[in-house]
Amino acid sequence: MIKSILIYLFVLLSVTSRSQSSDEATIKQIFDQALSQGQSYKMLHDLSTNIGPRLSGSPGAAAAVEWSRHVMEDYGFDSVWLQPVMVPHWVRGTKEIGRIISTKKGTLSVNVCALGGSVGTGPSGITAQLVEVKSIDELKAFGTKGVQGKIVFFNRPMDATKINTFSAYGSAVDQRSNGASEAAKYGAVAALVRSMGSNLEEYPHTGNMRYAPNVVKIPALAISTAHAEQLSKLLKDDKEVQVYLENHSVTLEDSPSFNVIGEIRGSEYKDEIIVVGGHLDSWDLGQGAHDDGAGCVQAIEVLRLFNQLGYKPKRTIRAVMFMNEENGLRGGLKYAELAEKNKEQHLAAIESDRGGFVPRGFTVPTDAVAKERVRSWKPLLEPYGLSDFSQEGGGADIGPLARQGVALLGFLPDSQRYFNLHHTAEDTIDKVDKRELELGAASMAALVYLIDKYGLK
Amino acid sequence: MIKSILIYLFVLLSVTSRSQSSDEATIKQIFDQALSQGQSYKMLHDLSTNIGPRLSGSPGAAAAVEWSRHVMEDYGFDSVWLQPVMVPHWVRGTKEIGRIISTKKGTLSVNVCALGGSVGTGPSGITAQLVEVKSIDELKAFGTKGVQGKIVFFNRPMDATKINTFSAYGSAVDQRSNGASEAAKYGAVAALVRSMGSNLEEYPHTGNMRYAPNVVKIPALAISTAHAEQLSKLLKDDKEVQVYLENHSVTLEDSPSFNVIGEIRGSEYKDEIIVVGGHLDSWDLGQGAHDDGAGCVQAIEVLRLFNQLGYKPKRTIRAVMFMNEENGLRGGLKYAELAEKNKEQHLAAIESDRGGFVPRGFTVPTDAVAKERVRSWKPLLEPYGLSDFSQEGGGADIGPLARQGVALLGFLPDSQRYFNLHHTAEDTIDKVDKRELELGAASMAALVYLIDKYGLK
Repeated sequence: MIKSILIYLFVLLSVTSRSQSSDEATIKQIFDQALSQGQSYKMLHDLSTNIGPRLSGSPGAAAAVEWSRHVMEDYGFDSVWLQPVMVPHWVRGTKEIGRIISTKKGTLSVNVCALGGSVGTGPSGITAQLVEVKSIDELKAFGTKGVQGKIVFFNRPMDATKINTFSAYGSAVDQRSNGASEAAKYGAVAALVRSMGSNLEEYPHTGNMRYAPNVVKIPALAISTAHAEQLSKLLKDDKEVQVYLENHSVTLEDSPSFNVIGEIRGSEYKDEIIVVGGHLDSWDLGQGAHDDGAGCVQAIEVLRLFNQLGYKPKRTIRAVMFMNEENGLRGGLKYAELAEKNKEQHLAAIESDRGGFVPRGFTVPTDAVAKERVRSWKPLLEPYGLSDFSQEGGGADIGPLARQGVALLGFLPDSQRYFNLHHTAEDTIDKVDKRELELGAASMAALVYLIDKYGLK
Repeated sequence: MIKSILIYLFVLLSVTSRSQSSDEATIKQIFDQALSQGQSYKMLHDLSTNIGPRLSGSPGAAAAVEWSRHVMEDYGFDSVWLQPVMVPHWVRGTKEIGRIISTKKGTLSVNVCALGGSVGTGPSGITAQLVEVKSIDELKAFGTKGVQGKIVFFNRPMDATKINTFSAYGSAVDQRSNGASEAAKYGAVAALVRSMGSNLEEYPHTGNMRYAPNVVKIPALAISTAHAEQLSKLLKDDKEVQVYLENHSVTLEDSPSFNVIGEIRGSEYKDEIIVVGGHLDSWDLGQGAHDDGAGCVQAIEVLRLFNQLGYKPKRTIRAVMFMNEENGLRGGLKYAELAEKNKEQHLAAIESDRGGFVPRGFTVPTDAVAKERVRSWKPLLEPYGLSDFSQEGGGADIGPLARQGVALLGFLPDSQRYFNLHHTAEDTIDKVDKRELELGAASMAALVYLIDKYGLK
C-alpha cells in the first residue's frame, strides 16, 4: 500500500515537474520571440504616427478600425470581423483659451482644454471671478451665495504619496467627472479643473465628464497642473482675480463605429473563449500611444506570437479592440450584450489599458478558485518581472462581461510614468520603450497560454 | 514552565510586531517625504543642465566636485569634505568621422565615436577594408592573414532575449573593452565596435576600452547599432567595402581630482559607517543624468531625508560621490585605500549606478547572514515595488571595500530602458522621471534605515 502510494506520488511529482518544465520552456519561447522579433512596437509606431488621435466618431477612429482589421487579416488569424456599435460623437472645436485677468499682475495666458463632453462657452467666452475648492464637499459649504455667477476652480492634486498612481487618480477624478454638474447646482458659470497629472506640467489633461440630469450644462475645462498652482497663488493675494475661458466644443449625433475582433480558433474547446483586449479609441490631443494603442497592439501580438511559434491553443483566443472606452464604453457594453445574446461561453478576459510600460504583474479574478489558480503561476512568471498579483479586477471594457461570470484579469505595468501623459498631447510614440512594450505582449501571451492549458476552475 | 515560555513568546511577538509596525511607519514617512517634497529631481536637473558632461579631468568634473560640496554643505550635513585622487585624463577631440566607401553604393556617413582611452587616427584618418567578426574567438580564427591591414568590425549584438539587460551588456562588452588589443595582435589598423545598445538606434555608445601591454595601440571607435546593421548588410554584398575613420583623441597627464563626501554622524556607534554612493564623473557625450548623476543625488537625498524627518541614525551615514568610475575607478580605489589606512570601520556600502529608473529591489551581500537579514526585510519593502533580492554584489566603486569585509549592496532599478541611453548623447535629464528617481532615493533611505537599526550580523 505504502509502496503504491509512493509510486503514485513519484509519478505525480514527475508529471508535475515535467509539466512545469514544459511550461517554463514555452513561456521562455514566448518571451524570446517577443524580445527578438516582436511586432508590438512596429504596429504601435504605425498606428500612432500614421493615424494618431482617434476619438469615437472621428475620421481617426474610422481609420483605426480599418487599420486593425487589415493588420489582423495580414497576420492570417482564423477570423477577423467588425462588430457595429453606435458611439457618442463629441468634437472639441479648434480654439481653446484660458486667461487670468489680474489688476495686480495683468493678463496671463494659461493652458486649458475642454473636458470630453463639455459644452462650449459660446463665441464671447466666459469671464468671471473664481471660487477655489479642494473637494465637492467644500463646494457645498460655499453654497449658492459663494458660487453663484462664478467659475468653480477644483484644485485638489493627485496624492503624490500613493505608490499606485491609479489609486491617486481614482481619488481625485471626481472633480473632473462630476465637478461641473455639482458646481452648476449652485449657479456656477463654468468649472475649471486641475489636470489629473502626477507632476507639475504646463500641458493640460483632458478626460471625460458627465452632466447630471436636470442640471444646467456649464462648460468644463482642465487647466495644467503648473498653471493651477500659479492661479491658486494669485488667488491668495487677490480674491478679485478673474478668468476668461473660451471653448467651442459640441456633441453631435451618435455615430456608427465598430469593435474590431480577430481570433484563433481552439483545437479542443473551440466554444470556450479567452479574450485579450484594449481600446481602439483615444483622446484627441495626443497619439493615444500608451492609452491605449499599447493595449491594442499587445492583444494582436498575443495571437501573432501563438501563430509564429506554431502554438495551437485548446480554446479560442480573441483579440478585441473595443471602441469608445474613453467617453461612453459603448464598445464594451455592445461586446458583452452580443456575447450574452449569442450564448458565447467566455472563460476569461484580460484587458491591457494601463499603458505600455514595463510589466509588474496582473490583476486577478475575484472568484477565489480562479484567483488562487492565477497566483499559483507566479513562480513561472516572476522571472519576467511579473510579481504583483495582489489586486483584483479587470478593466473598463471587459467589465460588462462580469455578470456572465467571466473571469476578469488585467495586465499590470508599472504605473509611475502613466499620469505624466494620460489624456494629453504628450501621449506619443516616443514615450514608449520598445522592450517594455514587447515584454507586456509576451506577459499577456504567457498568461493566456496558462489559462488556455489549465483553465481557471 | 510552559506558562513562562508562553509569556516569553507573547512578549517577544508583541515586541517584534510593535517594532515591525514602527518600521512600517518610518519607511512610509521616508517615502511620503520623498514623493511629496523630495529634492532628487531638482538636484539632478541642476547637475545635468548646468554642469552636464563631467569626464575625469575635465572642467565639468571639477565643477561637479564643487557643486556636490556646496549642495551637501547647504543641506547642513555634519561634515562635508573632499578626498584628493589623481585621475586619468582622456580627451575625445572635436572631430569624429565615419564613412562607408562602397563602389556599388557610393559614400555613406555613419555615426561613430571614439571609445574612451582610444588613440587618434591622425589627421589623415584611416581607410581600410573590413573583417566582420562576432567574437574574439572568430577574430582568432581569421588570424593575421585575414586581419592584417584591415579594420576589425566587431558586430555581436547584445542578446535581446535576456530579461536583465545588464546581463546582456556583460556578455557583449568584451568586444568594446578588449577588441582593439586583440585585433592589433593580428595586425589590424583599427577596431570598429557595434555600440552596446539594446535597440537599433542612430547614435553611438562610447565606453571604456583598454590596451593590453606590449600591443600596438590602434584606434577604437563605436558605430551606432543601426549603422552596424547597415554596414553588415553591405559587406554581405561587397567584401571590398572600405571604411574611413577619423578621430583625434589623446590621453594627457593624470590630473588631480576628488571624491566628495558628506556625512551625518551616528548617535550611538559613530565609528560604524554605512556608505551610500554613486559616481560623479560621466561620459562626455550626454549629461550623465542616469549614469550616474541619479546615483549621486540619491545618495545625497538619503542623508537629506533623514535630516528632514529628524531621524538620527545610530551609525554614521556617508554619501560618497566617487570620481572616475567610467575610465579608471581611481576614486573607488582611493576611498578603500584610505578607509583601510585610517582604520575606518565600514558596516555596509550601497551603490546606485544602474540609472534612476523605477525601483525593483536590491542586490544583496554575499555573506550568508547579511544576505538573509536583508531578504528578511522584503515584506517591509515590497509595498514600494522592491521585490527582487535575488542577485548578489554591490557595484564598481564600492567593490574595492570587499577585502575589508564590508557588506556590499546595490540599488536595483528596472533595467529595460538603461541601455538605450547608456554612454550616449541621449543620457539627458528629460529621460529621467521625477517619481521614479525620488522612489529610488526613498528605497535607499529605507534600506539604510533598516541596516542602521538592525545591523547585518
